[in-house]
Amino acid sequence: MTAPQFADRHVGPDAQDVRRMLEAVGFGSVDELMDAAIPEVIRWHGTLDLPPAATEEQALAELRELAGRNRVAVSMIGLGYHGTHTPAVIRRNVLENPAWYTAYTPYQPEISQGRLEALLNFQTMVTDLTGLTTANASMLDEATAAAEAMTLARRASKSRSSVYVVDADTLPQTYAVIASRAEPLGIEVRTVDVDADELPAEFFGLHLQYPGAGGAVRDHGRLVEAAHRVGALVTVAADLLALTLLRPPGEIGADIAAGTTQRFGVPMGFGGPHAGYLAVRGGLERMLPGRLVGVSRDADAQPAYRLALQTREQHIRREKATSNICTAQVLLAVMAGMYAVYHGPDGLREIARRTHAAATRLAAGLTGGGLELAHEAFFDTVTVRVPGRAAQVVAAAAQRGVNLRPVDADRVGVSCDETTTEAHLAAVWAAFGVPAPPADAPAAAALPAGLARTSDFLTHPVFRTHHSETAMLRYLRRLADFDYALDRGMIPLGSCTMKLNATAEMEPISWPEFAHLHPYAPADQTAGYRELIDQLQRWLAEVTGYDAVSVQPNAGSQGELAGLLAIRGWHRSRGEAGRDVCLIPASAHGTNAASAVMAGMRVVVVACDDEGNVDLVDLDTKIDQHRDRLAAIMVTYPSTHGVYETGIASLCAKVHDAGGQVYVDGANLNALLGFAKPGRFGADVSHLNLHKTFCIPHGGGGPGVGPVAARAHLAPFLPGDPLAAGAGLGAAGAPAGSAAAGADASGDPVRPVISAAAHGSAGILPIPWAYLRMMGADGLARATGVAVLAANYVAARLRGHFPVLYAGNKGLVAHECILDLRPLTKATGVTVDDVAKRLIDYGFHAPTMSFPVAGTLMVEPTESEDLAELDRFCAAMIAIRAEIDRVGAGEWPAGDNPLRNAPHTAAMVTADEWEHAYPRSVAAYPGEVTRAGKYWPPVRRVDGAYGDRNLVCACPPPEAFQED
Amino acid sequence: MTAPQFADRHVGPDAQDVRRMLEAVGFGSVDELMDAAIPEVIRWHGTLDLPPAATEEQALAELRELAGRNRVAVSMIGLGYHGTHTPAVIRRNVLENPAWYTAYTPYQPEISQGRLEALLNFQTMVTDLTGLTTANASMLDEATAAAEAMTLARRASKSRSSVYVVDADTLPQTYAVIASRAEPLGIEVRTVDVDADELPAEFFGLHLQYPGAGGAVRDHGRLVEAAHRVGALVTVAADLLALTLLRPPGEIGADIAAGTTQRFGVPMGFGGPHAGYLAVRGGLERMLPGRLVGVSRDADAQPAYRLALQTREQHIRREKATSNICTAQVLLAVMAGMYAVYHGPDGLREIARRTHAAATRLAAGLTGGGLELAHEAFFDTVTVRVPGRAAQVVAAAAQRGVNLRPVDADRVGVSCDETTTEAHLAAVWAAFGVPAPPADAPAAAALPAGLARTSDFLTHPVFRTHHSETAMLRYLRRLADFDYALDRGMIPLGSCTMKLNATAEMEPISWPEFAHLHPYAPADQTAGYRELIDQLQRWLAEVTGYDAVSVQPNAGSQGELAGLLAIRGWHRSRGEAGRDVCLIPASAHGTNAASAVMAGMRVVVVACDDEGNVDLVDLDTKIDQHRDRLAAIMVTYPSTHGVYETGIASLCAKVHDAGGQVYVDGANLNALLGFAKPGRFGADVSHLNLHKTFCIPHGGGGPGVGPVAARAHLAPFLPGDPLAAGAGLGAAGAPAGSAAAGADASGDPVRPVISAAAHGSAGILPIPWAYLRMMGADGLARATGVAVLAANYVAARLRGHFPVLYAGNKGLVAHECILDLRPLTKATGVTVDDVAKRLIDYGFHAPTMSFPVAGTLMVEPTESEDLAELDRFCAAMIAIRAEIDRVGAGEWPAGDNPLRNAPHTAAMVTADEWEHAYPRSVAAYPGEVTRAGKYWPPVRRVDGAYGDRNLVCACPPPEAFQED
Repeated sequence: MTAPQFADRHVGPDAQDVRRMLEAVGFGSVDELMDAAIPEVIRWHGTLDLPPAATEEQALAELRELAGRNRVAVSMIGLGYHGTHTPAVIRRNVLENPAWYTAYTPYQPEISQGRLEALLNFQTMVTDLTGLTTANASMLDEATAAAEAMTLARRASKSRSSVYVVDADTLPQTYAVIASRAEPLGIEVRTVDVDADELPAEFFGLHLQYPGAGGAVRDHGRLVEAAHRVGALVTVAADLLALTLLRPPGEIGADIAAGTTQRFGVPMGFGGPHAGYLAVRGGLERMLPGRLVGVSRDADAQPAYRLALQTREQHIRREKATSNICTAQVLLAVMAGMYAVYHGPDGLREIARRTHAAATRLAAGLTGGGLELAHEAFFDTVTVRVPGRAAQVVAAAAQRGVNLRPVDADRVGVSCDETTTEAHLAAVWAAFGVPAPPADAPAAAALPAGLARTSDFLTHPVFRTHHSETAMLRYLRRLADFDYALDRGMIPLGSCTMKLNATAEMEPISWPEFAHLHPYAPADQTAGYRELIDQLQRWLAEVTGYDAVSVQPNAGSQGELAGLLAIRGWHRSRGEAGRDVCLIPASAHGTNAASAVMAGMRVVVVACDDEGNVDLVDLDTKIDQHRDRLAAIMVTYPSTHGVYETGIASLCAKVHDAGGQVYVDGANLNALLGFAKPGRFGADVSHLNLHKTFCIPHGGGGPGVGPVAARAHLAPFLPGDPLAAGAGLGAAGAPAGSAAAGADASGDPVRPVISAAAHGSAGILPIPWAYLRMMGADGLARATGVAVLAANYVAARLRGHFPVLYAGNKGLVAHECILDLRPLTKATGVTVDDVAKRLIDYGFHAPTMSFPVAGTLMVEPTESEDLAELDRFCAAMIAIRAEIDRVGAGEWPAGDNPLRNAPHTAAMVTADEWEHAYPRSVAAYPGEVTRAGKYWPPVRRVDGAYGDRNLVCACPPPEAFQED
Repeated sequence: MTAPQFADRHVGPDAQDVRRMLEAVGFGSVDELMDAAIPEVIRWHGTLDLPPAATEEQALAELRELAGRNRVAVSMIGLGYHGTHTPAVIRRNVLENPAWYTAYTPYQPEISQGRLEALLNFQTMVTDLTGLTTANASMLDEATAAAEAMTLARRASKSRSSVYVVDADTLPQTYAVIASRAEPLGIEVRTVDVDADELPAEFFGLHLQYPGAGGAVRDHGRLVEAAHRVGALVTVAADLLALTLLRPPGEIGADIAAGTTQRFGVPMGFGGPHAGYLAVRGGLERMLPGRLVGVSRDADAQPAYRLALQTREQHIRREKATSNICTAQVLLAVMAGMYAVYHGPDGLREIARRTHAAATRLAAGLTGGGLELAHEAFFDTVTVRVPGRAAQVVAAAAQRGVNLRPVDADRVGVSCDETTTEAHLAAVWAAFGVPAPPADAPAAAALPAGLARTSDFLTHPVFRTHHSETAMLRYLRRLADFDYALDRGMIPLGSCTMKLNATAEMEPISWPEFAHLHPYAPADQTAGYRELIDQLQRWLAEVTGYDAVSVQPNAGSQGELAGLLAIRGWHRSRGEAGRDVCLIPASAHGTNAASAVMAGMRVVVVACDDEGNVDLVDLDTKIDQHRDRLAAIMVTYPSTHGVYETGIASLCAKVHDAGGQVYVDGANLNALLGFAKPGRFGADVSHLNLHKTFCIPHGGGGPGVGPVAARAHLAPFLPGDPLAAGAGLGAAGAPAGSAAAGADASGDPVRPVISAAAHGSAGILPIPWAYLRMMGADGLARATGVAVLAANYVAARLRGHFPVLYAGNKGLVAHECILDLRPLTKATGVTVDDVAKRLIDYGFHAPTMSFPVAGTLMVEPTESEDLAELDRFCAAMIAIRAEIDRVGAGEWPAGDNPLRNAPHTAAMVTADEWEHAYPRSVAAYPGEVTRAGKYWPPVRRVDGAYGDRNLVCACPPPEAFQED
C-alpha cells in the first residue's frame, strides 16, 4: 500500500527523462553528476533528519489538524490589523488563481500588463486616498514602510539634525521597527506625546499616527507646520479606510504617508503578508524606495505599463543604496487594489461609515454604562478606562469569543471594522459589564467636523465600472490573460528559481483557521500556528545546518538585514563595536551591499577572477587592509554565476581567522539541499528565500519570506518580538525603549525587530511547511540533483550555439547557466534584449537578463520542468540563434528583423499593411510553437525611457487607449 | 450597520443603468414594466416567505455551521461510491475554476475545443478500459446509465421478448432505477442469481454487475454467450478501476458497458454529481443515447472536435425519442478524464493494485480471525458472514470512525479504495473482533487468474505526458484558454439562462464536510445535509407555489420524467390507468415529448398560433378527441417563444375540467420568481432547472439538478429512496421488488426511483441554497424584473435591425427575445450560422440558434449582465447587420465575406497570403472589440457533417495535428 509520492509530481522529469538528460550531460547517474559537480570540501553525506515524506493527502490532513488547534475568534484588537471581508470573487480569482500567484516580477513589461495595471490601480488608490502625488507599488508592511519613510526624510530633509521624532501614539510595532532601523544609522529616535509635549528644537523628520494607535483622531496641521519650519519632513501613518471620511495627509501638508492596506480585503494571516504602502508629495517621487509602476508607451506609441525609474532604487545600487527593498507585496497589493475597484468610492465610504457607526454605538453603550473613554474623537477604535480591571475585561471578552487589546492594567482598546456585528458589540458590552443600549439609541458621530474629508477620490472609471461580480470576474480574467505566468510555460529565471507552487501547498493558506488570526491573538488561540512555525524553523535549521532560525523577516532583503544585525550585535556584545567592514564580492547581488549599509557597515568590494570566482588573493589583501575592523563577508553559494566555487572553505577560514563572520546568501540553496549545509561548511549566518527554494510563489513580484538562520553563537541576536517590552511597547501603549541590536541595561542582548509581526508573514508559512513535509529528505535531494542536471542539460544542448560562461568542476555548472550573447551582439547588433523579447514570440518568459554579467542571459530551469519543456526551450533558443545568424549574414536588416521588432502583437501581425523584411508567419508562429496554444502579448516593446522622462504613476484616462 | 447586499453584486445593472434601460423601453419603473408585461391573471402580489437576505459572509457562515453538522467518516460502504483522492491541481484548476465551470454546452464547437478535448479524453478512457468501441461523453449516474442500457438493448435486440434479466448481485439503487424505468415501458424485469439460477428461455437483455455488489468477481463469459444465443444484448456494469486489472467487458463479448467514474477523483458529495458512463461495441454507436464528442475538421481541414451525430439523440426527437437525456455530467467527466490523464495507465494500475492489496490484507485478517467470506474472488470488496452480528459490527466500526455496509442481519460488506490505510483496516478488524495480522502477513491476490487483464490501455500520448503537476497545470490552462465561458463575456443563450455563478455559492461544494459524504452514510453523520436539503425544498416550494419538492432528479430531463410519473401514479391510484395521453404544444422543447414517452404516455401535439401561443381552439379539439384518456398537458411558461401567454389560466382550467393534470416546465422560471407562482396559477407539477434560475453552473454541458415540485395531491408520488425496501433492496442485498409508480400490496403508493441517490446530486445543492439565502424575497423579484427589462432593452435596441418575433402585452417580451434572420437570409444568403460564428470574432458567444424557430436567434441576457455588456452586444449585432447589408449590396461576394468565413483564427489572419474580399483588420478586429482583450478561437468553422460521415470518437493520433 505504498502511496504515490509528491516528489513524483513536483519533479518534472521522470526516470526516462532523467536517463536521457544524463546521457546528454555524460553521466551515468544523478549521484555521479553531483559527486562531480559539488566540491568534496563542502559536501555533506548524511541523510536529512526530516519526517518521512507525506503524501499530499497526509500533509493536508496534518495541516487540517494543526489548523484545528488554532481558534478563530472575533478580533477587535486593532493596532493596524483588522477583520475584513475578502470578496469571494477576489479570493478565488486572484489569491487562489495560478495565473496571478505563479507570475514573476514584471521586469518583462510586455507580458505583465495585467499585473502592472492591477498595481497601477493600487498606486492610484493610495495616492487618491492619501491626497499625495505618487505612491509605490507597495511595501512589506506598515512598520517597515514607516522605517523607509524615516530614511527618506533623512535624505530629503535640509535639517542637519539626526533626531527623528515619533508620535507616542504610534503603533508599538512600528516604533520597534523604526528604532531597530535607526540605531545602526546613527539616528536618534525621540517620542513625544503630541497632545502635551513640545517638539524638539531641531529634527529632520516627524512621524505621526492618524488615527492614533489608541484610536484618537487628532488635527495634526499645527505639528506639520512646526516641522516644516525647522526643515523637517512629516510622515503620516494613516489608516486608508479612515481617509475615506477624514481629511487626508496630503491636505494637511504631509510630505509622506505610510501604512497598510490589510483591511482592504486581505486576511490578517497571523501577521501577514499584507501590502504596506508609501506615498509622497510632488518632488519626492524620485527618492521613493521600492517598486514603482508607471505608464509609458510601446513601439506603436500605445500606452503601456512598466516598472518606472528602475535606475533609482529598483535595481539596487549597491553601497550607494539607501534602501534594500527590492520587492513589493504584489499579490496582496493586487487584492487590496481590486477591493477598491470592486467597492468603488461609494462602497468604501459606506464601509467606513458602517465601521464608524459600530464604534460610535459601542462608545454610546460604554459611556451610557458609566465608563470613560480616553478620547472623544475617534474613527473605529476607542480606549476605555477601567482602572485595575483591564485584564479582567479582556478575559471576559475572550470568553465570549472576542479579543480586545489590553493597553495596560487600567485601559482596554476596542477596534471595530467592517465585520463587526451587533452580536460582537453585545459581547463587548457584557465583558465591560455595561448593558446594551437600545437598538435606536443615538450615537453621535465622533469625527471632528473640521477634519471631514471634502475632496473626492477614486474618480478614475476603473473604480466605477466593475461593481457586479460578473464584471469583476471578467476584469480579473482579462488582466490575467494579458500575462505570462508559470501556468503557461517555463520561466527560466536564473537566481529566481521559478519552480512549481503546488496546489496542495497553496490550499491551506485560504483556510479560515490560518487566514483569520490576529498577530496579537492570545496564545491559546494560536497553538497550531506556533507548532507549525516551530516545526518549520527546526526543519529549516536541519536542511541548512544551522542551530536557530527566525521566520520574522518578511522578505529576503529583511533576512539579510537581520543576519547582519545579528553579526553586529554579536561583535558589540564582545566589545568589538569597531568591527564595521563588510566584504562583498564584485559579483554579489546589489541587495547585499544595501543591507550592509543599513546595518551600519562599510562595504569593501572583493574582486572576482575571470572565472567569476572570488579572487582569494584580493581577499587576502582586503582582509589585511581591514583586519581590525572586519565584521563580515557576504557571499552567495553557489555563486551568483551559478558555480560551486571550490575556494569557499578556504574563504570562510580566512575571514574567521581575522575575527570576521561569514554570511552566506541563501538565494541559491536550491543547488545545495541534501548535498551541502552552509551552517556546516563554514558560514555563521544566512537568510533563506522561501519563495525560491521552498515554493512560496512569487505572486507577481514577491516577496516570499526571508528567514534568517544562524549558528548558536549568533542565535541570541536574531529578531525579537515587536511587542516585547524592550521592543517598544511600554506602559500606556507608548513606545518606551529602543529595540536596536546591542545589549540593554540588564546585559541581555536586545533583539532587533525586523518586521511588524513576530512571525512575519506567518499566513504563507504553510506553503514551505507542506513542501518540506511532502518531499522529505530523499525528495529534497532528488529535487536538487534534477535541478543541477537540468541546468547542465540546457548548458550541454546550447553550448554549441551560445558560449556558456563560467563552470566549476569538470566544466559543470550548478543549478543555472549563463549564456553569453556579447560576441553575437558585437557581430550582429542583436542584443540580449532582442533575444529576450523574441522568446515571447516563441512562448517563453526570458531568462534573467544581464545579471550578474551585462549582455548575458542566465537560465535556471529548476527541477520542476520536464524534458519536453526543456527541449522546447532549447529548440527556441537554437532557432533564435539561427535568426541572429540571418541578421549577421545581412539577410535581414539590423533595423527590421523579427528580433528587433519582437515581441509581435496580434494587432501588428494582423494589420492590413505589412512592410517588414520578413513574412508575417515568421513574426507570429516561429519554431515549433503550437498554433492553438499561442500566447499573444498585449503590447509591443515598451519604451521605458519615455515613461521615465514623462513620469505617470496613476491610472491614465481611458482616452489614452483610444486608437488613432 | 446595514451590510452590502449580495443582490447588488448578482444583478449587473445598477440603479443608473436600470434608469437608462427603462428609458429605452419606455417605462418609468421596473414595477410598471412588470405590471405591463405579466398578465394579471397569473400575477401574484405577495412577498415570498423566505428568510431575509443574508450577506455573502453570513450565508457562508451558516453553510459552515450546516457543514459542521455533517461528520466525515471513513467510508467503506462501497455500492458504487468510493473514497478517492481528487488531485489538488484538478480540484483547483477545474472544479474551482470559472473558466471550466461557467462554460456552456459545446454546441459552438469553435469556442469549445478545450472541453471537447477533455471529453474526448474521457470517452477514450472509457472505451479503453471497457474494451468497447465507442463511449459517450458521460451519463447522469450509474443507475440511469444502466436504465438507458436497458432501453438501448430493447431497441437493438432482435428478440421479441419483453423480459429484461438483471443479475441479483446488481447495485440495489441500479435495480431500483431500472425497475422504475421498465414498468411504464412494459418491460418485465426478472432477477436471477447468476451463480445458481438458470436464465429464462427468452429475454431481450441481460444486466450483469462486474464485480458484483457484494464484491464477487465472476467470469461472465458463459452468460454472455447464452444471452447472445437468444438474441439478447448484454450490459456489463463494470468498475473502471477494477478493469485496469480485470479482463474488460468488451473482451468477454459484452455489447454495452455502464457504470460510474466517481472513484476517478470525483468526491462522493452525498450522492453526486458524478459522471456515469455508457459504452457500446461497434455497430451500436448510432443508437447510443446522450452526448457524443467526435473528431471532425475545420475550414482549413485541420482536426477539430465537436458534438457528433447531433441529429441522433442529441437534439431530442420529440415523440420518436428513445431517451430524454440531453446533457452530460461534463464538469465531472472532465475531472475523471483528467484523473486518468494525470495518473496515466501505470498510475491507475498502481492505484488498483494498492486498493486490491488493502482488500486482500483485510480479508487475510478476517479469515485469520476465523471469519468466513461470502466469495473467494474479489477486487476491493468483501462480504463477511457474521451470523446475527451484522448490526453490532457495523456499529462498532462506526464508533471507530469507519462506515461499513450492513447487507442484512448476518452479513457485512467492506470496500477498500485508494484512500484506505492500515489504520482503517485496523479499525475494521477491531470492529469484527479479530486481531490485526502481522505487517508482513501473506495475503494472496484474490483475482481469478483467468480474468487477469492482458490488453494494454490508455496508450494515447495524452495519458503519458502530463504526469508532473506543472505539466498538468499547463495542460488545464491551455485547454481552458481555448474556450469561451461566462468569465470572458456574455453568453446570451435563450432558454438557458447563463447568469452569474457566484463564488460564494460555489466555494462550499469543495468543503470536505459536503464533498466527502457517502450517500448511504448513517443519518447521524448527515444532519447538516438533511437540514440544508429540507430548507432548500421548502424554499423552492415557496417560490413556485407548490406543496412538495423532491431534489432527487439529477437533471431537468429526470425531473420531467419524475413529474409525469407522479401524474401517472396519481391517475392509477384513482383507478384511471387508462389516462395516457399527454398534450404537448408544437413549440415545446423536444425533451418534453421524450419524457412523456418514457412515462408510458402517448404524445398528442397541440398547435400554436401565429404569435407562438398555444392555439386554444386546437386545444379544445384535442381535449375533445382524447377526453377520456387525457393524462396531462405539458407547457412551458413563459412559452419557449419567450412570451407571457395570457391564455395560461384558461388552458389550465380546460385541462383540469377534462380530468387531466397540468405540467409546467420550469425552464423559464427566471421570468416568474417573485411575480407569479406556477403552483398558484393552475399547474399541478413542474420540474425546475437549478442550473438555470438557481445558479448551479452549466459546467460545460450540465446538468444541474432538476427538482420536481408538485401540489399536495401529487406529493405521494414524488421520487422515493432508492434503498427503501420497496425500491429494490430486499434481503441478502438482492433486489426484491419493483419500485415503479403505482401502489404496492399495502395500498400505499410506491414512489418511483429517478436517480441512484436519494437526494440526487446533493453535493451541489449548497449552490441554490446560497443563492436563495443571499437574494431573499426582494432580491429574487429584483432579478426577475431586471432579467425582463434586459430582454426588452435588447429587443428595443435591435428591433430596427432585426425583426423581433412574438411579443405579449404591449409588445413586450418576457426574459428573452427572438431575432428573426429569415428575411435577411432569403435576401442575402447570410445564415443564422454565419451570424453566430461572426459573433465569435466580435468576442461573443452566439445566442440560441434556430430554437424554437428555425432561422432565428433567441437572446436571453439575464439579470447579471450590466448595461455596458448589453450595449457591447447590441453594438456587435448592429455592426453585423451592416455587414450583412454589404453582402446584400454585392459589395462582398456571398461566398467570401467576413460572415461566411467566420470565425477567423489568428493563424488565418496572420497567414502570409491573404486573398479575401475584405481586409485582415475587418476579419480580426471588427467593431468596438478591445484589441488587447481579443478572444481567438483555436479552429475555424467546424464541418460537422464530415465528422458524422467519418465517425471518430476517441483521441486522434498526434500526427493528425501536424501542419501540412
